[in-house]
Amino acid sequence: MSNSRFSGVLAPVITPFKKDLSPDGSRLVAHCKWLLKQGVSLAVFGTNSEANSLSLEEKISLLDQLLDAGIDPSFLMPGTGSCALSDAVTLTAHAVKSGCAGTLMLPPFFYKGVSDAGLYAYYSEIIERVGSAALRIYLYHIPPFSQVPLSLKLIDKLVHTYPNTIAGLKDSSGDWNDTQAFLSGGWSDFRVFCGSESFLLQNMRNGGAGCISATANVNPAAIKGLYDNWQGPDAESRQQQLDKIRDIFQGFAMIPALKAASALYNSDPNWFTVRPPIVELDRNSLAQLQRQLSAADFEMPGLPGDILGYDARSGE
Amino acid sequence: MSNSRFSGVLAPVITPFKKDLSPDGSRLVAHCKWLLKQGVSLAVFGTNSEANSLSLEEKISLLDQLLDAGIDPSFLMPGTGSCALSDAVTLTAHAVKSGCAGTLMLPPFFYKGVSDAGLYAYYSEIIERVGSAALRIYLYHIPPFSQVPLSLKLIDKLVHTYPNTIAGLKDSSGDWNDTQAFLSGGWSDFRVFCGSESFLLQNMRNGGAGCISATANVNPAAIKGLYDNWQGPDAESRQQQLDKIRDIFQGFAMIPALKAASALYNSDPNWFTVRPPIVELDRNSLAQLQRQLSAADFEMPGLPGDILGYDARSGE
Repeated sequence: MSNSRFSGVLAPVITPFKKDLSPDGSRLVAHCKWLLKQGVSLAVFGTNSEANSLSLEEKISLLDQLLDAGIDPSFLMPGTGSCALSDAVTLTAHAVKSGCAGTLMLPPFFYKGVSDAGLYAYYSEIIERVGSAALRIYLYHIPPFSQVPLSLKLIDKLVHTYPNTIAGLKDSSGDWNDTQAFLSGGWSDFRVFCGSESFLLQNMRNGGAGCISATANVNPAAIKGLYDNWQGPDAESRQQQLDKIRDIFQGFAMIPALKAASALYNSDPNWFTVRPPIVELDRNSLAQLQRQLSAADFEMPGLPGDILGYDARSGE
Repeated sequence: MSNSRFSGVLAPVITPFKKDLSPDGSRLVAHCKWLLKQGVSLAVFGTNSEANSLSLEEKISLLDQLLDAGIDPSFLMPGTGSCALSDAVTLTAHAVKSGCAGTLMLPPFFYKGVSDAGLYAYYSEIIERVGSAALRIYLYHIPPFSQVPLSLKLIDKLVHTYPNTIAGLKDSSGDWNDTQAFLSGGWSDFRVFCGSESFLLQNMRNGGAGCISATANVNPAAIKGLYDNWQGPDAESRQQQLDKIRDIFQGFAMIPALKAASALYNSDPNWFTVRPPIVELDRNSLAQLQRQLSAADFEMPGLPGDILGYDARSGE
């Protein structure tokens, strides 16, 4: 089954909204096609996709629009975890039926201090109810947001019960110790993705599978470049280049900063729009982001826009 | 508008599930009717209702079943907050259209460190989109679970913009300092409910409106008794009696303990069932709970069951 698992670079695809805050399927399709051309796969409905601000119906509709537009589902790893078991089952089943090569699965994140037994029951119920041999689950460890960490013991039990289904994990703890522990789990062909390209070289050198990173939305080719060349002589300098761009974005609220870059480089102010509780960058932050990206000679090659073609000072 | 706002005691009604984990509307109706007879109102879809483990459709269907069964919506304060703006709008609109006297509204709780501006935009979008003069929102401050506290500044801005809509708040911080700050907000007819009857007397003495408490599911009449007699000579001793029962339940995981009490006192093992990630009490905890409740002469008067009619040792 090894070749049916993901590796490489994935973007938690940012979700464009119309002025009325409804999801904008056309712009999502365009952005996904651009990302695929840059060599990265599509973790739609991730944290940076504002996925938890979308209803189940909105996610199903967006996924259908991507497929209708000809996006190959073998590049799709939609986020299908949810607080509600019933929602997680519905969306996961839809993803599998649609041919998605995997799903990224949050634990239920409202209740805190839940037991491993409870989390095991959640994942297990989903797997049993979806009941498909084609299902590949990538567990989503993101304590800073979920506040519900995934323990090694839990993963171990899941992998042993469902060796063909539990395919890997995204580690967005931001803590290399956690990543290292997952890499050392001893689970057969278990794919560990770091949640930021800052750890990409380190992850690859330790047996990791790649990264699923917010900034792959705006800097995909360069991140893919390091992935493809991590054993090359220039790997360290590639990592440093990536870190430079990552550091810029990390200086701002990530989601509106990614959307601002998309708006600026596409000359498309619609990309600025976010859903509450996320807010757009204020005027000053936007100008700062623009200055810092310009100073770093940042580019989003292949997009129609150009940083000079859109002036933040003019508003919107 | 004063008399259109809630006061008194409300139960965040526990949600019964069938063996297949689907919501059990008939048992919910029966439990709600019993609660109403005890004099408490119905905060269905609260934290202790496992509401965040239910899909939007499941909540709409349960609400419809309650109304179809003749439950008076003027006693209903369903929880309608959600991570997803679109879900919150749909459920809130349905609640208002159904005549519910209020809704209890969580902030979106996935993203952490969100700004007051973002939370204001969330509540404001819901109010504007629902667009009903009949809407009464009770804000839900529950940092231990949401990790998204509601600031005085945020509430102040909401109350000033929507004085007829923002009707009050449930404080489940567990911190009396928070409750006191909300009570001192200076907002006209703003109803502050404490999230546990442990604070009920204190809350009433400081101008509070009542409580919305997990244990009102099992000890409703006694809690209502203190509410009705908080100025009476026996108020302190009533509070002490309540605390004794509350302390027992707080010694266990709250949701499965409430359901266990319902199962035991109704002689109805179906009530044990919880949805992942919540797990049932283990055999030992169940026996302990049963012993402690018996020792405290705890009763759920008016229920068909009897603690002796169901033996925990025999298993389910």
